[in-house]
Amino acid sequence: MKFFTGEIHSNMFIGVVIDDEWVMDVKKAEAKLFELETLPNSLSECIKMGDKFVEHVGQLLDWAEKKEEDRGSYVYPLSDVKLHAPIPKPSKNIMCVGKNYQDHVMEMGSAADIPKDVMIFTKAPTSVIGHEADILLHEDVTNELDYEGELAIVMGKSGKNIAPEEVQDYIFGYTILNDVTARDLQKKHKQFFIGKSLDTTCPIGPYIVHKSMIEDHGALHVETKVNGEVRQSASTELMIFTVEDIVSTLSKGMTLEAGDIIATGTPSGVGKGFEPPKFLASGDRIDITIEPIGTLTNHVK
Amino acid sequence: MKFFTGEIHSNMFIGVVIDDEWVMDVKKAEAKLFELETLPNSLSECIKMGDKFVEHVGQLLDWAEKKEEDRGSYVYPLSDVKLHAPIPKPSKNIMCVGKNYQDHVMEMGSAADIPKDVMIFTKAPTSVIGHEADILLHEDVTNELDYEGELAIVMGKSGKNIAPEEVQDYIFGYTILNDVTARDLQKKHKQFFIGKSLDTTCPIGPYIVHKSMIEDHGALHVETKVNGEVRQSASTELMIFTVEDIVSTLSKGMTLEAGDIIATGTPSGVGKGFEPPKFLASGDRIDITIEPIGTLTNHVK
Repeated sequence: MKFFTGEIHSNMFIGVVIDDEWVMDVKKAEAKLFELETLPNSLSECIKMGDKFVEHVGQLLDWAEKKEEDRGSYVYPLSDVKLHAPIPKPSKNIMCVGKNYQDHVMEMGSAADIPKDVMIFTKAPTSVIGHEADILLHEDVTNELDYEGELAIVMGKSGKNIAPEEVQDYIFGYTILNDVTARDLQKKHKQFFIGKSLDTTCPIGPYIVHKSMIEDHGALHVETKVNGEVRQSASTELMIFTVEDIVSTLSKGMTLEAGDIIATGTPSGVGKGFEPPKFLASGDRIDITIEPIGTLTNHVK
Repeated sequence: MKFFTGEIHSNMFIGVVIDDEWVMDVKKAEAKLFELETLPNSLSECIKMGDKFVEHVGQLLDWAEKKEEDRGSYVYPLSDVKLHAPIPKPSKNIMCVGKNYQDHVMEMGSAADIPKDVMIFTKAPTSVIGHEADILLHEDVTNELDYEGELAIVMGKSGKNIAPEEVQDYIFGYTILNDVTARDLQKKHKQFFIGKSLDTTCPIGPYIVHKSMIEDHGALHVETKVNGEVRQSASTELMIFTVEDIVSTLSKGMTLEAGDIIATGTPSGVGKGFEPPKFLASGDRIDITIEPIGTLTNHVK
């Protein structure tokens, strides 16, 4: 199942994708089909319900299929829906892995920079935007805005000291994240937070795909296009630290929570890696595709 | 005024200090004295109300003084109250300035490490604890747990691109923060987040003191004692980057929000700076004093 936070006729709703054309408002569907109001008001709260939420939505989808005549109040055409970030206002910073693909480490420096231990920095929740929202160029503070297409983990339940083999039990699903970076600020301020946290520099979405739809999270293809030109194209099997390594390491002494978002690092092909660099410019269109999640598209302004 | 989040008879409340012995539950006082329920349910929400909140509580304190006979339902002895962190669950990571006192930079390295630009890393909200709560030693993941006494800023309203001379308008008040750090993890993982975010490693409090009570935030004395021994003793006038520099720099392109907590860096005298190092051990008591905020006390377990 593909979940999202959507907006239609100025109303926000929690949605699930039915097919390429149609989506369902899960709370409206619950009220109509089951005459119930058990679901909370945000996707992050729903995720905290765990498997119950996924089963419940599964039942709603089954019922909706049988009751085709009366779907207008809770099934909308996808084309009428504005997609927000799946979790528009995360309750803590986004955690991101730095230098997790060898070729990317090399394009940014040298083999000496290949990390022996997971490197984690964060992005402010205020930087989060959704699919099709504009990335501001921030010309007054940076001349080197750059893209980084990444697979992101969405945690499904709280846990601490999670063993690698237990990690998948704690994950809800996966999404796409563009770790947009001001390279000059990243360098100038040493610790990455400032260069990674400008407003609008964390596009996420379009969907959070439940893990049951991902056959092998260690063999997904990440592709980033800028204005149609393929810049990044790599498999997640090239990660230096796997999803299991990352979550397990982060949870050593630190409680991870349902709804936490962890970006797994970017492969080679970022703007900074080209000679001369290909930084973002106004009007650029960025498409990051990871199937079966979809394509996250944003424009630079 | 000194604000806090307290607990009495298992009920959480938003409090203000009356004097050394007595505190007021501001929501109960409002209901009793004004027959109103305008205040929200958390101190961070109150802070978002801005000056209105401070004026309102000022009126409550004035009234309570005149109605001494009937105070039992909203005025409690401080000794009966458990103090939580003033904002127990911040809505984003705590932002922290690294290397902001020259003597501390020297004890950790050399003059070459004195930063030319503000360095910011973050601590996870899950690391926050209150006054008198236990700091876990985390012996399974670190052998080098260390204290860092710091003045912390609490933002009072949202803003972006804040000029240095406007910074004080955006600040609500100040508190004390112990940026407890796993030195081995800080070094091992390069970016500081992991070494700074273990559960219980961010004691904050006991109070958020409104800025009107702070005569000169650039001349406050920060003192850290471990088991009664003075380890850190310095004035905030020694900061390399002032409160104005820090907030102004952070807000360049990044929206700061009411309730955001920004720790301003630690002076010399951390455990790692001694030869041999004096890391924390089970049973240690840490007292960090910054007047007029008070003393933040925690025990290591």
